Amino acid sequence: MSNIKARLLKGFRDLLPCDAIIKEKFLSNIKNTFENYGFSPIYTPALEYIDILTGKGGDENEKLMYRFQDNGQRDVGMRYDLTVPLARFVALHKNELNFPFKRYHIAPVWRAENTQKGRYREFYQCDCDIVGSDSVLSDVEIVSLINNTLSNLKIEDFLIKINSRVFVDFLFNIMKLDEEGKKKTAILMDKKDKLPIKVFDDELEKLLNNEQINIINEYFLIDNIDSLQKFMSKLEIIPDELKNEIDKFKKIFEYCLFMNKHLKFDPLIIRGLDYYTGIVFETVLVESPQYGAIFSGGRYDGLVSLFTGEKIPAIGASIGISRLITALEERDFFGEKKNTVSDVIIFNLDEKIQSKYLDIACIFRKENIKTDIYHENAKMKKQFKYAEKNGYRFAVIIGEDENEKNILKLKDLKNFSEKEISLEHAVREILSTF
Amino acid sequence: MSNIKARLLKGFRDLLPCDAIIKEKFLSNIKNTFENYGFSPIYTPALEYIDILTGKGGDENEKLMYRFQDNGQRDVGMRYDLTVPLARFVALHKNELNFPFKRYHIAPVWRAENTQKGRYREFYQCDCDIVGSDSVLSDVEIVSLINNTLSNLKIEDFLIKINSRVFVDFLFNIMKLDEEGKKKTAILMDKKDKLPIKVFDDELEKLLNNEQINIINEYFLIDNIDSLQKFMSKLEIIPDELKNEIDKFKKIFEYCLFMNKHLKFDPLIIRGLDYYTGIVFETVLVESPQYGAIFSGGRYDGLVSLFTGEKIPAIGASIGISRLITALEERDFFGEKKNTVSDVIIFNLDEKIQSKYLDIACIFRKENIKTDIYHENAKMKKQFKYAEKNGYRFAVIIGEDENEKNILKLKDLKNFSEKEISLEHAVREILSTF
Repeated sequence: MSNIKARLLKGFRDLLPCDAIIKEKFLSNIKNTFENYGFSPIYTPALEYIDILTGKGGDENEKLMYRFQDNGQRDVGMRYDLTVPLARFVALHKNELNFPFKRYHIAPVWRAENTQKGRYREFYQCDCDIVGSDSVLSDVEIVSLINNTLSNLKIEDFLIKINSRVFVDFLFNIMKLDEEGKKKTAILMDKKDKLPIKVFDDELEKLLNNEQINIINEYFLIDNIDSLQKFMSKLEIIPDELKNEIDKFKKIFEYCLFMNKHLKFDPLIIRGLDYYTGIVFETVLVESPQYGAIFSGGRYDGLVSLFTGEKIPAIGASIGISRLITALEERDFFGEKKNTVSDVIIFNLDEKIQSKYLDIACIFRKENIKTDIYHENAKMKKQFKYAEKNGYRFAVIIGEDENEKNILKLKDLKNFSEKEISLEHAVREILSTF
Repeated sequence: MSNIKARLLKGFRDLLPCDAIIKEKFLSNIKNTFENYGFSPIYTPALEYIDILTGKGGDENEKLMYRFQDNGQRDVGMRYDLTVPLARFVALHKNELNFPFKRYHIAPVWRAENTQKGRYREFYQCDCDIVGSDSVLSDVEIVSLINNTLSNLKIEDFLIKINSRVFVDFLFNIMKLDEEGKKKTAILMDKKDKLPIKVFDDELEKLLNNEQINIINEYFLIDNIDSLQKFMSKLEIIPDELKNEIDKFKKIFEYCLFMNKHLKFDPLIIRGLDYYTGIVFETVLVESPQYGAIFSGGRYDGLVSLFTGEKIPAIGASIGISRLITALEERDFFGEKKNTVSDVIIFNLDEKIQSKYLDIACIFRKENIKTDIYHENAKMKKQFKYAEKNGYRFAVIIGEDENEKNILKLKDLKNFSEKEISLEHAVREILSTF
């Protein structure tokens, strides 16, 4: 017998039922919130022409792409995120779509990056975006959606940190940074929370002169939009674009008052220097900061125009579900894991009664009781062991005796109790635990 | 502005919301039935080592794979189906799994094959498999699951055609076919329903001698298991393995009586000559035969052993969801399509009332009413046009007047009626249409 070694590619993983059940529940919960906010699903392919994927990605992203030539000698790549495919989608179907266009997309993406805890080369993103509106309402709706998505998942310690690329651009211009200087400063700012203060200050000194350092250090201390306005207007006359963005931010905070301590202005948030043009945000778990941002995004008014030439404003957010689940697992968020979705197992005691087992399964299933039948006519002990390992709540036992009396034994495997009851009674009993 | 042409790879497609909404509903319905039968989800990666994917696929499959070298010079491929990855999964996690192991997997697969109507190079499969049982109950449960999955989707004209590779192997041996002859005859049999009788008979004559043709033609006429038994025993003394398989089939038909006209023995079903070892089945839509098999599978007791050396019996079935939806679309199964999942849109008439729009959306959403707010402060006509195109059931209108009176206008966009009512009343009104 030829034997092929069963193995996984580095950075990839399987999910066994115990973990897949949790992920499915999470995804379904997220999907419900997205739809509750009026976002509709779309699908785009896993493979795209490589020039579309690399469009505005920059060298760094390009290196991390799974790319190859297909059988037709086309240069193709596996999608790296869901935002660039969305921009391509909007450009291609512009005349069929109804703007503002609100879509969600829950799907895997692939990045050939170094693996670390909670990071894999294949992972799921849950994205929601509004394309075709630059109204403050669309910013507010996206921020509010983040808040409610996480609340609906029963996560309480999240903090949405927001800033705007308009503020950062103004600051960098005041500081007279060139493109290279902007890029390096942005990368460093992104690391500020992770670096020791001394190291950060040393790095800053290498990049900036004293005057620049004074400005940026004062900027780092700002923690609300009024202080930001004061700080900015002290530096220079505030141009219209900046004024509008500050007004927008005031409205966002006014409309999002209900979010309370979950929303905070944070001058450090930049989200790289790629396609963002306005509001940017990152959401962290306050009690698990080591996992970084788990729900991020921002406004990118220039991305769609890469494919159409026409500027179409857009804003979106994306949850990294794998990282979020890893973070929550560490704090025992999910309790005892089950190896099956089933509520009940019907034991198989007598081949002559098999058709009855099938009938009962059929009746349970009609009542939306998820039901297994033990397939083999094995020893009771083996069947109990199987049931215990899978984690069913109930076992149904019908041997010759029970069959003749037209009753069944219903074992509650959680409370270790047992009843001899009618089928009808058993259905009610099981449903009462839902 | 650099412009990249928005385009899709040949054989790939996007789904716009109107189609994605249908697909999501279908997938969720299928998932519910699979879980109702006690199948639990798993995840496996889109990419696997190529030797795993090609393991027992044969030349034909290998040509159709998306394969390449990754950055680490590993030979990898995108999964071609969900069955081979399952076999690899079972081999890898054998010690963590609880057998019989029942899993479902709903995910895309990729094949670089010629495109045709309803067939794409990326398509979704919905697979359910039972690994670790050769009991007749597992065969019955899979067949019953197919029946109920399609019934729950409100499809009525399906026919599950079943046969066994044990029967076909016996027949081919009686006919004294060599491996090449078996393969060619199997391929031809698979095409019998699609070829004109004359063409089929000519092809058969090229392959077989008169005696063989007489045997196989008689075999083709068999339409139930009793006739099959008679036919087989006329040819030769029935060996034990065949006897057991015939008994198994009798039980399957006995236990599946409730399926009535939806289940039929069909001597033509073979499903290629690759990994199947026992029962094989194909499900067709009686009124759309041109779409071929839409829910197929069988018993494959040898596949897992490719990776473990240890024989583990398995049976499974797979729906080709894209093809099924295409077939149903042709018969106008889905009615009028909607471009949004939302029930309600709140119009945006006055910037000063925006926070009220947000509050109302929040209240609706808490009641599980899927709610949109029109983001821009646009003309009524434009907002109505948007609402009409998206297909909401209700529009909520609050201008200065309504705001002062603390009421709202609820427009029923289906029945063209309008009411001035309180918010509380509106919630009840909308919920009453669910």
